Amino acid sequence: MSNFEVLNKTGTARQALLSTPSGAVKTPVFMPIATVGSVKTLLAEEVKSIGAQIILSNTYHLLLRPGPELLRQVGGIKRLMNWQGPMLTDSGGYQVFSLARLNKIEEQGVTFNSHIDGRSLQITPEISMDVQAAIGADIMMQFDDVAAGVSTRERYEEAMLRSLRWAERSKAAQRDKNAQSSIFGIIQGGTHEDLRDRSLEGLVNIGFDGYAIGGLSVGESRADTFRIAKHVASLMPADKPRYFMGGGMPEEIVYYVSVGIDMFDCVLPTRNARHGQLFVWAGEPAICVKEAFSRAQEGAADFRIAEALYTKIQITNEEFTSDLGVIDAHNDVVSSQTYTRAYLRHLFKAGEILGLRLATLQNLRFYMRMMEELRKLIVDS
Amino acid sequence: MSNFEVLNKTGTARQALLSTPSGAVKTPVFMPIATVGSVKTLLAEEVKSIGAQIILSNTYHLLLRPGPELLRQVGGIKRLMNWQGPMLTDSGGYQVFSLARLNKIEEQGVTFNSHIDGRSLQITPEISMDVQAAIGADIMMQFDDVAAGVSTRERYEEAMLRSLRWAERSKAAQRDKNAQSSIFGIIQGGTHEDLRDRSLEGLVNIGFDGYAIGGLSVGESRADTFRIAKHVASLMPADKPRYFMGGGMPEEIVYYVSVGIDMFDCVLPTRNARHGQLFVWAGEPAICVKEAFSRAQEGAADFRIAEALYTKIQITNEEFTSDLGVIDAHNDVVSSQTYTRAYLRHLFKAGEILGLRLATLQNLRFYMRMMEELRKLIVDS
Repeated sequence: MSNFEVLNKTGTARQALLSTPSGAVKTPVFMPIATVGSVKTLLAEEVKSIGAQIILSNTYHLLLRPGPELLRQVGGIKRLMNWQGPMLTDSGGYQVFSLARLNKIEEQGVTFNSHIDGRSLQITPEISMDVQAAIGADIMMQFDDVAAGVSTRERYEEAMLRSLRWAERSKAAQRDKNAQSSIFGIIQGGTHEDLRDRSLEGLVNIGFDGYAIGGLSVGESRADTFRIAKHVASLMPADKPRYFMGGGMPEEIVYYVSVGIDMFDCVLPTRNARHGQLFVWAGEPAICVKEAFSRAQEGAADFRIAEALYTKIQITNEEFTSDLGVIDAHNDVVSSQTYTRAYLRHLFKAGEILGLRLATLQNLRFYMRMMEELRKLIVDS
Repeated sequence: MSNFEVLNKTGTARQALLSTPSGAVKTPVFMPIATVGSVKTLLAEEVKSIGAQIILSNTYHLLLRPGPELLRQVGGIKRLMNWQGPMLTDSGGYQVFSLARLNKIEEQGVTFNSHIDGRSLQITPEISMDVQAAIGADIMMQFDDVAAGVSTRERYEEAMLRSLRWAERSKAAQRDKNAQSSIFGIIQGGTHEDLRDRSLEGLVNIGFDGYAIGGLSVGESRADTFRIAKHVASLMPADKPRYFMGGGMPEEIVYYVSVGIDMFDCVLPTRNARHGQLFVWAGEPAICVKEAFSRAQEGAADFRIAEALYTKIQITNEEFTSDLGVIDAHNDVVSSQTYTRAYLRHLFKAGEILGLRLATLQNLRFYMRMMEELRKLIVDS
């Protein structure tokens, strides 16, 4: 069971301490994603050294490879990857609905074909909890029914109601499998406030260790995302962690923090890095984040928050060919202050793996530093 | 100009100090290959931290990408990749004859098409020296005509004689371009002792800072390689560094050291690593190398030298699925003592880049440690 203590507040934003069986986490926090047993290109000690407090592992991916039997045998993915801190696992729901070839959704669970070898598998709330326990999660997520990108109100409602029933089964199974871990419920309901309200109410009635906003950042407009996030955050229990799943761009995270959300995860920093897209500080990080946060509090448009934070550069562009400036003078990860843009561009153009590492370190440290500055802002305000 | 001082000898093996404009190198030495501006998957500081004293850069690859203009502009590849130690560059000859689509060999030089985009390029001795100077070499290699894998005596002789003429032009061009660097001549002549002798004699008459054995390990039998290496090494000037180009397996290097060769380079440790093939110490490194070296001195067969040194494991094999042993308890690179074989296998099976890094660190540190132990053996004997 996790313990959650709000230590500081400014407006609706809060800074808290989340305790888990594997250590405490200062929120607001961003969780790097260790999809299949590594934060891509990085060693666990590097992930820790750039400021990560907690990582996220993907149940769907680890169910396929290396599979729960091996994970049980070796004592979980954390032991395998040498990550000693806290870990959250998703439920597999999102990937089943987005990556796999879905066969059918039934009340019992979901049947699908692996995107790797096509073999048929089933995930039910009970199986998801079992696999999450085998992975070795400190925080588990309920198994949920995820409506596709933009769906009809009927589909959102159906998915939300089924998710509520699966929430109850998830909680029961989690208590069975690993009562020391905690479990979060997932609020569904698309872009409809009333569906979101019913979802939250149902989850609170069951009672979870934390609550997550699911089914956003899946294709709806940014204005819709912000509206629903703010609305739902304002109603979520104040004494439990609030987690926005799968979001997002730096400016989004600053906004979500301003409305009182505590936890985040996203593939953006690592995936964009591998495509040569870098988040480069617009200036001194403390000043950038302060300005961005103040714009977020005033309800500024996302691009206005973004421009205070960073410049997005495509390192493969011609303009960086002979740029002997360092990757980012304001990013305190050593490699970004050591290596030049000309070198990083060359590595990408030549297809050298080292380029992916340098870009990943840059982006992930950008996110980590942003969270550090956000926490300081809330503490100092 | 380099300076070379033999400090210790045991039998025909020697331990020496090779001075270059960028620092001194203790021989026998293995040079990791930074093909296109990185030792694949690794940062320059990691390459240094596992014991590399000098790296090798490929003229052919860097001529294509990023090209000599950019290299001149940024002050050479060492500045770009942040390698502060000595560097040797090959002449581009070997890759032109093996990788590129060769158009024609003329007395002036070689015309070929890039294996990347097909564009037509020329390398002459003068162009090779110019590009090696742009790359920023401490030690340059003459441009040579490389006979294919196994050729006729006529072709070996033709290539050897042309290489001699190109040696003279290479030396003149090197003195023009960068007189502070040193230049090595390359002994050709296939598996024919008399051709090798004429090649060496011609090169010594021109006068080089060091001499390399080229055109071996290209498809001939191991017995032939050993025979020619031993024969040529015994005739090479004692007061100049002797370099065996492109070899080889650990047992080969131990043998070549025993016959008095000083310098080595090979893609094997890094390339095999990326294919999941690991060199794992057969026991305590000092003891393994001592035994292997003593077998080499006795003229043992290569497999007998190899079995004293290492076990070659294919990490993707089924047997490592749940092997919670560390990668190599006798390899002192931290990651090989931290991560398990089960984890490394999982990373390879899941296609995770981190696996390539861990395997590269294992193999490259194996080679570096082997060279350290060989040097100690010669010093202590």
